[in-house]
Amino acid sequence: MEGLRRLIIGVLLVTPVGVLAGSASAFFLWALDRATTLRFENGWLLFLLPLAGAGIAWVYHSYGNGAERGNNLLIDEIHQPGGGVPARITPLVLGGTLITHLFGGSAGREGTAVQMGGGLASAFATLARIPEKYRRMLLMAGVAAGFGSVFGTPLAGAIFAMEVLTLGRVQYDMLIPCMVAALVGDFTCTAWGAHHTRMLIAGPLMGDHSMLAGMDLSLLAKVAIAGVAFGLCARLFSSAGHGISAAFTRYVPRFWLRPVIGGVVVIALTYLLGTREYLGLGTVALNLGDTTTTSVFFEGGADTWSWFWKLLFTVVTLGAGFKGGEVTPLFFIGGALGNTLAGLLGMPVDLAAGLGFVAVFAGASNTPLACTLMGIELFGAQHAIFFAVACWLSYQFSGHSGIYSAQRIASRKDGA
Amino acid sequence: MEGLRRLIIGVLLVTPVGVLAGSASAFFLWALDRATTLRFENGWLLFLLPLAGAGIAWVYHSYGNGAERGNNLLIDEIHQPGGGVPARITPLVLGGTLITHLFGGSAGREGTAVQMGGGLASAFATLARIPEKYRRMLLMAGVAAGFGSVFGTPLAGAIFAMEVLTLGRVQYDMLIPCMVAALVGDFTCTAWGAHHTRMLIAGPLMGDHSMLAGMDLSLLAKVAIAGVAFGLCARLFSSAGHGISAAFTRYVPRFWLRPVIGGVVVIALTYLLGTREYLGLGTVALNLGDTTTTSVFFEGGADTWSWFWKLLFTVVTLGAGFKGGEVTPLFFIGGALGNTLAGLLGMPVDLAAGLGFVAVFAGASNTPLACTLMGIELFGAQHAIFFAVACWLSYQFSGHSGIYSAQRIASRKDGA
Repeated sequence: MEGLRRLIIGVLLVTPVGVLAGSASAFFLWALDRATTLRFENGWLLFLLPLAGAGIAWVYHSYGNGAERGNNLLIDEIHQPGGGVPARITPLVLGGTLITHLFGGSAGREGTAVQMGGGLASAFATLARIPEKYRRMLLMAGVAAGFGSVFGTPLAGAIFAMEVLTLGRVQYDMLIPCMVAALVGDFTCTAWGAHHTRMLIAGPLMGDHSMLAGMDLSLLAKVAIAGVAFGLCARLFSSAGHGISAAFTRYVPRFWLRPVIGGVVVIALTYLLGTREYLGLGTVALNLGDTTTTSVFFEGGADTWSWFWKLLFTVVTLGAGFKGGEVTPLFFIGGALGNTLAGLLGMPVDLAAGLGFVAVFAGASNTPLACTLMGIELFGAQHAIFFAVACWLSYQFSGHSGIYSAQRIASRKDGA
Repeated sequence: MEGLRRLIIGVLLVTPVGVLAGSASAFFLWALDRATTLRFENGWLLFLLPLAGAGIAWVYHSYGNGAERGNNLLIDEIHQPGGGVPARITPLVLGGTLITHLFGGSAGREGTAVQMGGGLASAFATLARIPEKYRRMLLMAGVAAGFGSVFGTPLAGAIFAMEVLTLGRVQYDMLIPCMVAALVGDFTCTAWGAHHTRMLIAGPLMGDHSMLAGMDLSLLAKVAIAGVAFGLCARLFSSAGHGISAAFTRYVPRFWLRPVIGGVVVIALTYLLGTREYLGLGTVALNLGDTTTTSVFFEGGADTWSWFWKLLFTVVTLGAGFKGGEVTPLFFIGGALGNTLAGLLGMPVDLAAGLGFVAVFAGASNTPLACTLMGIELFGAQHAIFFAVACWLSYQFSGHSGIYSAQRIASRKDGA
């Protein structure tokens, strides 16, 4: 009965967190759309990127109170409650991300959604005077609701919150609260009118036999090779990100100068390549021929090196101190790499892009299970096995330093 | 590089295990079909059930060498290698299960497939002189391949092998070997011409919005209530099974007399109820109106208490010492309970039956994640959220003593 009581209390406590995080995600998605449109309409905004970066850095430096550690702060506080997650993380990361996108930085959404969720959970816990012992649950619920609502994938959101904390392990004790929070968050976000891009992979519907019956074994081998490539790409992303960040910290002691330099590099890269397609989220584009997270599903929808350029733009943007998440750029990078690999390996472009979407992120964040479920939630079950193979191989080959440095290690990948 | 070497060795080593386990599953499925047909054609076989039980008990007693501990032996040997898994477990469990089904005992398949897989893995390791350090991996691969191939759900098989060992935790170190073994096993089994019953749940295809958009919140609430009921049913199944087994051990010192009494009880129950529908696997039936794992998906396809009778038949059969697994009876029990709940709660019969299929097993075996994926593999992704909610709530309410008593506990469900 004690268990039942705890469960009911848990459900009651995480429901408001889900509503708050889902509402925040809905507003965030709407505002992000507006920011992107404004940027498209006013091309000159890009030139203010260095200045915008200095502004973000200054605000975080003056008022951050630890919030600049972002997702890592959340992971640490869930593992070992310390100073708590400051409520101000919510407006800070929201504002920082919108400014990053308005002026053309290359960044994503999940970090923002997750930090807003965590910040709101923390604020709710303080205002409603929730006892200390429930803090961990509320923070995890905030992460699950933020992630689940911003992508419209509640199942993946719930598993993500449990999987991201520790490399190589899923612990079940917060399963139900995370699930409830993610469902409530997604429902709330949808109820506000937010919608998510749906993608489709053409493919045979499930037959009356095993899914592997009639499966092309050579296709499975190609998927495995692609999975390894996605893992190595994730490894490159993580280490480039950590490297740039470390280099900035070491060689540019003036904190506000870092995003200024980063912004200038982004502008320079833009003019060097002669295209603006690697700026911003990458879900929509100004020109018809530009690469986006949608175009990568079609033949010719990405150039051979599109994945690399987006990777470079993103690690420079985030490493310099701009705000936002990594997931949407990783979708872009993975999808574009999949598009390229499809040509090299001779496999369907839409399948390869879909695999890259989830598998690069799986490797970079060390969450292969959440990403397998995300693939199923985004693209349906008929390719479930391919998603699993690609995500798990990517995880296996992405190394131990993912994008979240606060992640603990429960089980090493090399069996050591 | 050490990690890569281990991975390649792992893949090479588990591939033959997958082929062996998949072939064994194919033969087992074929022989099971034959045994069931023979039983249908010769109704008098049921009267020999007590004698058959005595025979199984005698063979296991004389030649078992530990094999009678079945799945629990495997779980223990994976946790802590001891005396090893005797190769004879494979013919013993295969023969015992076929005899159980030929004479009308109510039992399933997964225990048999998993033990055959483990036994074959062990035999392979001994014959090929595989170093001791790979034994754990090979045993887990045998479990994954056995489970994945007998049900045609490789993804669920791989996760099952990692999830069943410890309650409340999935550990990732054997992810790739389990995945490879399950895929190879399923492919091999299918290549032999074995096929699995496919079930369909009618339902809206995924729209262009979030899966929860347009989702009936009241339906979600009903799914949650059903999930709790499935968990309580799983709890009843596990404790009744342990109770009957303990009572036999305590009050019937003569080991061979136990299945004789069990067989007599099954015959008595059959004549008391005046139906043979609760004998055997329950996937096919002799009479048109009988309840089966297929009929439960249709309105009127199960009586109000069908689930309870199948539960009783199964715990008596297995508790008395007959052989076979628990999964297919749990499919039957869950599906029939879902059928009943559909009427009570006012929800679609096919959905409720499908949820019961995977959720009762999720609770009884403490593998909610494998069962969520199994639901997706069997029924497609459009109901993924419902499967997750039902499986996780069932897990939450099924208590700590699942059907596998050797399972370790990593994280208690009541948060204690």
